Amino acid sequence: MEARVAMAVPTEKSEVLAATKTPTTLSSDSIINVARGDPALYEPYWKKQGDRCKLVTLGDELMSYFSNAVNLCWFLMPELDRAIRELHHVVGNAEVDDRFIIVGNGSTQVFHALLYALSSSGEHVPVNVVAAAPFYSSYPEETEFLQSGLYKWAGDANCFDKDGAYIEVVTSPNNPDGSIRGTVVNREGGKSIHDLAYYWPQYTPITHKANHDVMLFTFSKATGHAGSRIGWAIVLDKTIASKMVKFVEVSSIGVSKESQLRAATILGVISKDCQNPELEEENFFEYGRHLMSDRWEKLREAVMKCNGALSLPEYPQGYCRFTGKYTDSYPAFAWLKCKEGLKCEELLKDKCKIMTRGGTSFGVEETYTRVSMLSSDAEFNLMLERLSAIKGTIHGN
Amino acid sequence: MEARVAMAVPTEKSEVLAATKTPTTLSSDSIINVARGDPALYEPYWKKQGDRCKLVTLGDELMSYFSNAVNLCWFLMPELDRAIRELHHVVGNAEVDDRFIIVGNGSTQVFHALLYALSSSGEHVPVNVVAAAPFYSSYPEETEFLQSGLYKWAGDANCFDKDGAYIEVVTSPNNPDGSIRGTVVNREGGKSIHDLAYYWPQYTPITHKANHDVMLFTFSKATGHAGSRIGWAIVLDKTIASKMVKFVEVSSIGVSKESQLRAATILGVISKDCQNPELEEENFFEYGRHLMSDRWEKLREAVMKCNGALSLPEYPQGYCRFTGKYTDSYPAFAWLKCKEGLKCEELLKDKCKIMTRGGTSFGVEETYTRVSMLSSDAEFNLMLERLSAIKGTIHGN
Repeated sequence: MEARVAMAVPTEKSEVLAATKTPTTLSSDSIINVARGDPALYEPYWKKQGDRCKLVTLGDELMSYFSNAVNLCWFLMPELDRAIRELHHVVGNAEVDDRFIIVGNGSTQVFHALLYALSSSGEHVPVNVVAAAPFYSSYPEETEFLQSGLYKWAGDANCFDKDGAYIEVVTSPNNPDGSIRGTVVNREGGKSIHDLAYYWPQYTPITHKANHDVMLFTFSKATGHAGSRIGWAIVLDKTIASKMVKFVEVSSIGVSKESQLRAATILGVISKDCQNPELEEENFFEYGRHLMSDRWEKLREAVMKCNGALSLPEYPQGYCRFTGKYTDSYPAFAWLKCKEGLKCEELLKDKCKIMTRGGTSFGVEETYTRVSMLSSDAEFNLMLERLSAIKGTIHGN
Repeated sequence: MEARVAMAVPTEKSEVLAATKTPTTLSSDSIINVARGDPALYEPYWKKQGDRCKLVTLGDELMSYFSNAVNLCWFLMPELDRAIRELHHVVGNAEVDDRFIIVGNGSTQVFHALLYALSSSGEHVPVNVVAAAPFYSSYPEETEFLQSGLYKWAGDANCFDKDGAYIEVVTSPNNPDGSIRGTVVNREGGKSIHDLAYYWPQYTPITHKANHDVMLFTFSKATGHAGSRIGWAIVLDKTIASKMVKFVEVSSIGVSKESQLRAATILGVISKDCQNPELEEENFFEYGRHLMSDRWEKLREAVMKCNGALSLPEYPQGYCRFTGKYTDSYPAFAWLKCKEGLKCEELLKDKCKIMTRGGTSFGVEETYTRVSMLSSDAEFNLMLERLSAIKGTIHGN
């Protein structure tokens, strides 16, 4: 299975490739693929919701290119616009009032739209795009693959010392390491993209309402619906918003209406539950937070058993405005480090048949590797079992 | 309404912009917008189908990034793959056996994927992209807007005389003028993209099974479902297909599964009806052909009444393998020409309040303009009324 997909996309460069679906029957010698970010862990929750998120579409519906011709983002369904704004109001994680919502085919397309919108100012030099390492492994390739004359990848923001315009991408909580981040370059002529894909209560305390000029979110990581390809940006400036609309128009003439309506339905159910005091402990985010808390506790236990062969970052508690209490961080990825001199990705692959994504993909050393915390229960539990046993295998080497 | 959308996208460059939805209540002084290609005319057909194309999606379905991890195009739903192949078999318009199907967010994204796949060969000079004028008005902008170092727009294929690699885009039947086309450059080092968006029985006789290396189709023009954003390519070469998969992955990590399933359902219903002898006169293509035939007859009558102020191309009959008889062409757009020295787009706008897209957008003279034949009945009929009256207004000038 792996081999077939690998022919289409080189492994070392791909965010998704390594995400080849693991067979549903796992045996003791199965390869466990947690290099991927496929959010399988939320599926049982949505199954339990039964018909509440049901969407019925007839043959004569949703036929026009247009969703709302009087809106700047003419391909955004009004239902999704409302649902996104309502959810951000309920969670309190981002300012949406007096801002534009721009929808895209996944936050990946929205990221491309932002690169275009923030760089197409008529200058004849490509704008430098940077992010502090460790950074999301797909940013370099997404920025470079069309060899655009508008923008180019310029690497680690911590080392950036070039003059002129630049775009800094800030992912917070960060992918891969879960840290809370701000811009690091902070110079005249700089613009920033705040990728808040993981700024939801199941992953991190919602300490404040983010109000950056440009904020990026994705349905995939918020609720687990990766197959729908829905992402959105919250944008303050009208010119930037207009250029993003132009990008999505020239790239794909809009975004699937079926997916938009489904996302609106699902986000609406979450908002409704979050506002129902009787469901305080059962809303999607509480469910997700408990699940992630349980997984992180088990992972830390397994890593403890390794007696220093592996280690994990620690995260500070924070006051979460959504839950109204001090909570811990439970990042969507674990940023594993092994002993100096060892290559963590190789080690896990060779000793445990666990596929992860190594530090070099994220612009740092090979002692680190990224492990998805969003796999299915079966994969996660088998992974724990193998990690717990790693100490012996290293010593025996 | 027009003004709001216009802020987002400059009118003269946009395929969709001019497509702002006309208000549903049309009055004698309403602006009629037939610059757009929104295929509203098929909606009543799909309404009549009732529950036959109903799609029900529950909250826990279609959640993974992956549709078929063992397929080269890992984000293509097997249901859609089968439905596309079956429909081409039934209609006989394109060879699909032993070829790859690559799905995209509309044929627009598939076109971008093809530019990438056909040009990313490691050479350091951008590949020239050409099409014979009049060509689809969006090709130049789609090719140029990211200022890619891989490819660049090089204009009318009829005038192309540069050396080296090139890509020729061949739209057949052609948008805007409905003509049947082949490549015109025919030199060493050339590759071609055959955009067959309109090669369906309602628009043209299916004279042969097309078997080019790269063929492009879109759900929008085949069935009228523009809002779903589903397009596909049929590709012979595995390396090209793999690069296209890579493009869609880096651009948007795949294609909405909801839309893919819905497209599979709707294409499936069409294939089934086409194979049912009792429905011979009622299948979607026969319905569409009669509708288009009726519209073209009425348009030609209206143009006749202008006494030479306007004219339309004539098309040869052809033996249609799908219907089993000699049939006429009924293109999705009418390519109107007015008297020499007049500007057809301006004339229709000023005299008739009819918005069309003028010849310059398609690389030719202003005496031509493109008129959508796919508008709603109300718009189409009002357009005919105004066109029939044009002669008097020109003479009175």
